[in-house]
Amino acid sequence: MFRQTSEFHDWFAEQRAAQDHRVTPAPLRGLDGWSFEPGTGDIRHRSGRFFSIEGIAVETDNREVAAWSQPIIVQPESGILGILVKEFAGVPHFLLQVKMEPGNINILQLSPTVQATRSNFTRVHQGNAVPYLEYFLAPRTGRVIFDALQSEQGSWFLGKRNRNMIIEADGDVPVRDGFCWLTLDQIGELLNVENLVNMDTRTVLSGLPDGWAVQGRTTGAEGRALHGKAALLSWFTEAKASHRLDRRRIPLAEVEGWAESDGVVVHGSGRFFEVIGVDVEAQGREVARWAQPMIAPVGRGVIAFLTRRIEGTVHLLVNARTEAGSFDVLEMGPTVQCAPANYEALPAGSRPRFLDEVLSAAPERVLLDVVHSEEGGRFYHAENRYLAVEAPDDFPLEVGPDHIWMTPHQLGEMVRYSHHVNVEARNLLACLRFLR
Amino acid sequence: MFRQTSEFHDWFAEQRAAQDHRVTPAPLRGLDGWSFEPGTGDIRHRSGRFFSIEGIAVETDNREVAAWSQPIIVQPESGILGILVKEFAGVPHFLLQVKMEPGNINILQLSPTVQATRSNFTRVHQGNAVPYLEYFLAPRTGRVIFDALQSEQGSWFLGKRNRNMIIEADGDVPVRDGFCWLTLDQIGELLNVENLVNMDTRTVLSGLPDGWAVQGRTTGAEGRALHGKAALLSWFTEAKASHRLDRRRIPLAEVEGWAESDGVVVHGSGRFFEVIGVDVEAQGREVARWAQPMIAPVGRGVIAFLTRRIEGTVHLLVNARTEAGSFDVLEMGPTVQCAPANYEALPAGSRPRFLDEVLSAAPERVLLDVVHSEEGGRFYHAENRYLAVEAPDDFPLEVGPDHIWMTPHQLGEMVRYSHHVNVEARNLLACLRFLR
Repeated sequence: MFRQTSEFHDWFAEQRAAQDHRVTPAPLRGLDGWSFEPGTGDIRHRSGRFFSIEGIAVETDNREVAAWSQPIIVQPESGILGILVKEFAGVPHFLLQVKMEPGNINILQLSPTVQATRSNFTRVHQGNAVPYLEYFLAPRTGRVIFDALQSEQGSWFLGKRNRNMIIEADGDVPVRDGFCWLTLDQIGELLNVENLVNMDTRTVLSGLPDGWAVQGRTTGAEGRALHGKAALLSWFTEAKASHRLDRRRIPLAEVEGWAESDGVVVHGSGRFFEVIGVDVEAQGREVARWAQPMIAPVGRGVIAFLTRRIEGTVHLLVNARTEAGSFDVLEMGPTVQCAPANYEALPAGSRPRFLDEVLSAAPERVLLDVVHSEEGGRFYHAENRYLAVEAPDDFPLEVGPDHIWMTPHQLGEMVRYSHHVNVEARNLLACLRFLR
Repeated sequence: MFRQTSEFHDWFAEQRAAQDHRVTPAPLRGLDGWSFEPGTGDIRHRSGRFFSIEGIAVETDNREVAAWSQPIIVQPESGILGILVKEFAGVPHFLLQVKMEPGNINILQLSPTVQATRSNFTRVHQGNAVPYLEYFLAPRTGRVIFDALQSEQGSWFLGKRNRNMIIEADGDVPVRDGFCWLTLDQIGELLNVENLVNMDTRTVLSGLPDGWAVQGRTTGAEGRALHGKAALLSWFTEAKASHRLDRRRIPLAEVEGWAESDGVVVHGSGRFFEVIGVDVEAQGREVARWAQPMIAPVGRGVIAFLTRRIEGTVHLLVNARTEAGSFDVLEMGPTVQCAPANYEALPAGSRPRFLDEVLSAAPERVLLDVVHSEEGGRFYHAENRYLAVEAPDDFPLEVGPDHIWMTPHQLGEMVRYSHHVNVEARNLLACLRFLR
């Protein structure tokens, strides 16, 4: 346990010094174990497992453009992202680990107690057993605090989901090398540091029920919210029922506008993202050496909530958001979620709604502004700027059918039910709830 | 408004006398507008709309058999099932209609205010406008009480869902011919009558929040429940994460064990169901004359909850149930859901779990026993016996990972979130909550 976060930083530096990892971009052709499938051009592992990169053709009435096709990661299996919690001297502590992921900026970030794909459990990697996994697999000891199936980045994953769990441990928990107990206050301080608390930790923590949050930081109960639960669920149902998402899986070779060039799959415009290969040499992971394809986004993204006090209670402007890989038409997303670079050449009317309000806000209205990474196991240096920006007092209470104001408490309740809140909104909510 | 339900029955008899409907079974070959598609053998309408009957091959670890294939209804569009509610003299009244459906036993049953497919709205039928639809389409007046996307019979529909809505009307609501206002007490009495309150009415009413239910009949708040919400949601997540449902759409002609014989698609064993054709002549519907295929189940089904008082609070034994057409692996179902005739020839060990407990219960343990029909628009004379049977006092609190005890209140809360509770459990819950 750390009395101050400076002690954590010293420990983290030691962890870093003791490890040696190398991640080297490498051409997709010739990547060890991976190849372009003849005919389709899909990128697959020779075992047929892990994941593949294929194509998808999308038509929807809920995005800036009506139809497009793109490469997408297909990974049908769902893994476990699990955090153990235990009270010491009456204060809940969360067990996190220093984990290497090839796509991470800084390579090492703070990860949940368990972050494992089903291939990890079933030992496709032929690596070491996953520490603490027994706390998360049935039959288990301990008490469930949170357990839901949650979708991940719909722009890059087709219907991918992971099981997000928080388990309160019974009895003594031995602390293994590379793991540490942190309080919510300490995690809240570390959330101020760029690219340290990884995506998986943030999404799991977003599901922590309000009673567990830091005293005095929980916000507005339902009674003081603009809309009741029935109205919020109805808004979500209406959005799902009124929008459409038609998609068709296609061979990667047939994705229009994309092509392989110099061992990388890129869009002709240079926008969106690239599919790259990396060679990895790692210590402290299940396997010491491997290669894999990754998605490398072009430019830093923006994930932002507009906020407003309504009758004294903080509200967030939530968007019903459709993405190529959405599990079911759409989920609740942040007010703005995009990579601004993709829209720079476009006229103002084609830019994502509320992006300009967020980026041009006066400094005193910026409540939260921190850079974090997305999952380093599949995404290479995928950074987002997480923002919360107070809207002007005269900002309308109704801004059309695809946005609604709800309190952080209400959004947190939605997180407890699988597939209601997308990963970007969950991660931003975790920053809002816990960042100090 | 009816002072007594006898007045309702008189009115209903008048409605019946004023209408004239004929439903005649007819061979699938030659059914007006419908044909077997060359090559696949799928049954489709010449317009390409409404629905089709295709094949599906299923593999799962959550049913009595590991793999099978079967015909299934494919109907991607979702409709609206909506009930208007309004207080008269302080008592909520629900607007129901007498509606003809070709598969209904007795032809006429009591239906929601609006029961309309998207084809109805968009006028594919070229029939009359749907009365009261404006109360359910945005932008609308009134107050949302309940609004969720709910799955329908997974044994016969592939991922079919309808929007279930309850809207409290503002201002005067003109009562059209064939419609009537009923209180929950009156609906509760009518639920004792076989095949009168249709499936769509029952599923919509299952979503009525507890505050609206009849005084003194709401059951056990969460505090007195065996498991809290986090534990119930975790059980559901665990079941979804640990079971698999792999399926592949196949041509109807390739469904093993099924074949067309005398204008009907049947299983070689005579079990399960038949796909039949019907010719319909109707008054009071959008179109006066049409033909369509229907699913005609073999034998009456059983839909049952085992119940138990735990520390004085009534609990229901809920099953994590997978079906061929499940939207997402499984949903919360009743303790038992099957057509017993399908299992008669099988050894006791192959019979559905708890079926014998339910069917052999002493009469004083049978809390509810009433026969109702499933949707008469797609299913022909599909009757189920809805049962609630009190389990012996020594019945265990844990009966394995696929069942869990929860209170009616808790199950009702799950209904408010789409795709948590299957249609059979919702309909049985409506009987349990409202039947007098």
